[in-house]
Amino acid sequence: MPATNRQIRLAARPTGEVKPEDWEHRSVPVEDPGPGRFAGRTRVISLDPAMRGWLDDRPSYLPPVGIGEVMRAGSVVEVTASDHPDYRPGDHVVGTFGVQEHVVSDGRGAMKVDTALAPPSTYLGALGMPGMTAYFGLLEVGALKDGETVVVSGAAGAVGTIAGQIAKAKGCRVVGIAGGPHKCAMLTGELGFDAAIDYRAQDVRKALREHAPDGIDVYFDNVGGDILDAALARLAMHARVVICGAISQYNNATPVKGPSNYLSLLVRRARMEGFVVFDYAERYGQAAQEIAGWIGEGRVKVKEHVVKGTVDDFPETLQMLFRGENVGKLVLELP
Amino acid sequence: MPATNRQIRLAARPTGEVKPEDWEHRSVPVEDPGPGRFAGRTRVISLDPAMRGWLDDRPSYLPPVGIGEVMRAGSVVEVTASDHPDYRPGDHVVGTFGVQEHVVSDGRGAMKVDTALAPPSTYLGALGMPGMTAYFGLLEVGALKDGETVVVSGAAGAVGTIAGQIAKAKGCRVVGIAGGPHKCAMLTGELGFDAAIDYRAQDVRKALREHAPDGIDVYFDNVGGDILDAALARLAMHARVVICGAISQYNNATPVKGPSNYLSLLVRRARMEGFVVFDYAERYGQAAQEIAGWIGEGRVKVKEHVVKGTVDDFPETLQMLFRGENVGKLVLELP
Repeated sequence: MPATNRQIRLAARPTGEVKPEDWEHRSVPVEDPGPGRFAGRTRVISLDPAMRGWLDDRPSYLPPVGIGEVMRAGSVVEVTASDHPDYRPGDHVVGTFGVQEHVVSDGRGAMKVDTALAPPSTYLGALGMPGMTAYFGLLEVGALKDGETVVVSGAAGAVGTIAGQIAKAKGCRVVGIAGGPHKCAMLTGELGFDAAIDYRAQDVRKALREHAPDGIDVYFDNVGGDILDAALARLAMHARVVICGAISQYNNATPVKGPSNYLSLLVRRARMEGFVVFDYAERYGQAAQEIAGWIGEGRVKVKEHVVKGTVDDFPETLQMLFRGENVGKLVLELP
Repeated sequence: MPATNRQIRLAARPTGEVKPEDWEHRSVPVEDPGPGRFAGRTRVISLDPAMRGWLDDRPSYLPPVGIGEVMRAGSVVEVTASDHPDYRPGDHVVGTFGVQEHVVSDGRGAMKVDTALAPPSTYLGALGMPGMTAYFGLLEVGALKDGETVVVSGAAGAVGTIAGQIAKAKGCRVVGIAGGPHKCAMLTGELGFDAAIDYRAQDVRKALREHAPDGIDVYFDNVGGDILDAALARLAMHARVVICGAISQYNNATPVKGPSNYLSLLVRRARMEGFVVFDYAERYGQAAQEIAGWIGEGRVKVKEHVVKGTVDDFPETLQMLFRGENVGKLVLELP
């Protein structure tokens, strides 16, 4: 065991895009687990669009990361030493352990995972928060029904790839919106979406008219901004707009662009609803089981974008999300 | 019976505020009812914020009023001659008869009203579309529950006065937002609202913090714009935002201002939902009966703003809505 634990801490609150100097790279001594706790070595760290919101000092569904605190992140660690009755060396555990090489935990909020069933990264993706977010957002908030037309933005991302494939598994017509021909080809090819719209090259509004001729029943929004407006303009009667995120707005230094077309909600008798996946924690097990079943049947394909590096690569890797450089779930895998 | 029927027709599609030259004032011969129809003399004409939307040539819940057509409006007429088995001279009938002095109807979409129970104007207000809109918007779309905190914008208007009083009748804490001290005093005095916010004189966001300290459970929005944003910033968990209208935006020549704070829907697990009252037509009778009951008990007070004039006064009277000059339901009463 090395003598030091490398950590990435928040040094300053970013305005707009996160800059390298907003982070502090620090080495601290590795902690001893102590009574009732276990120590673990980080194997793989999750990178999520929501992280940008955690850096702002404003009321949200979680308190902001404090200045000087280790950056909050989900990760999978391998237990190296334990005084905790439930964890033994060699166990893999998923939890919100932060961006650091070594962790110590009393097991609260942690969950043992079976790396024989799926690699550690998948517990941060399809079987982790993004998978849960897609599942409950689509089926509970979106109240998806068989045969409906579903449009997913950020469709090539961690949540979008799963949301679109769940909608397909449920018998829906699925249109994905993503940036660039490579992602779009993957959506309609490998992932079986019915259509894909490249928002960088196409007029999204016109493309939605073509691919959702009878209107959108469920719009699963990960991006906000102009794409949300284009979708609002094409809602079917009694449509549901699921607000999962708004990555196009997270780095704004100016106020968020509100959806100009929100009065479509009135004309189309539609609703727009937000959610936070943590509210469904009691049902994660059931959802993970169903998603694992679809993965086993080949109906849901797991897309992961693995960057191999050290925790020092976290800041630069995070930027990939906002530049749209990842395909599927973005993770940082430590040596 | 006079030989001519004075009508107000749409002459041109307005951009921004409606101008006098957008209307044509025309006199045509009075029609004979003919077989199976009745003729009526207009007693009172409804003026509604939604009328502005009917003038724009874009898809909505009703087709736009055509250029050269008599302006669409609800009204109460007195039957003057009839070959229709259900209507006799002297009967009062409510329907969408348009801005004209004389009407001929086959009775479709029309309903006889009892002027012994309530004056004709009330069938255009508390017992008409505005009352229905308040009732179903609040109770069905807003899913109002006892003891919740309700905020109503456009609170001194036709729908707002009824919505706030229904919420009071249902045991809720009610805060109204309106323009000017006169309207605000009426809300908290005569109408029994718990608090009123004068958006012209007060910082709405700060005032909502004071008057809805635990957050807003149901926000009934008639206005859109900055007030909608202020309300979104103060939602309680699982809040419902009812989109009834957006009068602040109807005269915009520029795009509608979308709600910047819509991501509160995510943080607060809230929903924003639009509706069109016509969808509840089958239940109007039940709603009118309940509202009439509250009126009888003095729990709902009917506020009407009656302008006495001729159909030629329609264009100028309509502008009163957008200048916020009316208190309660605005109607034009003909001689």
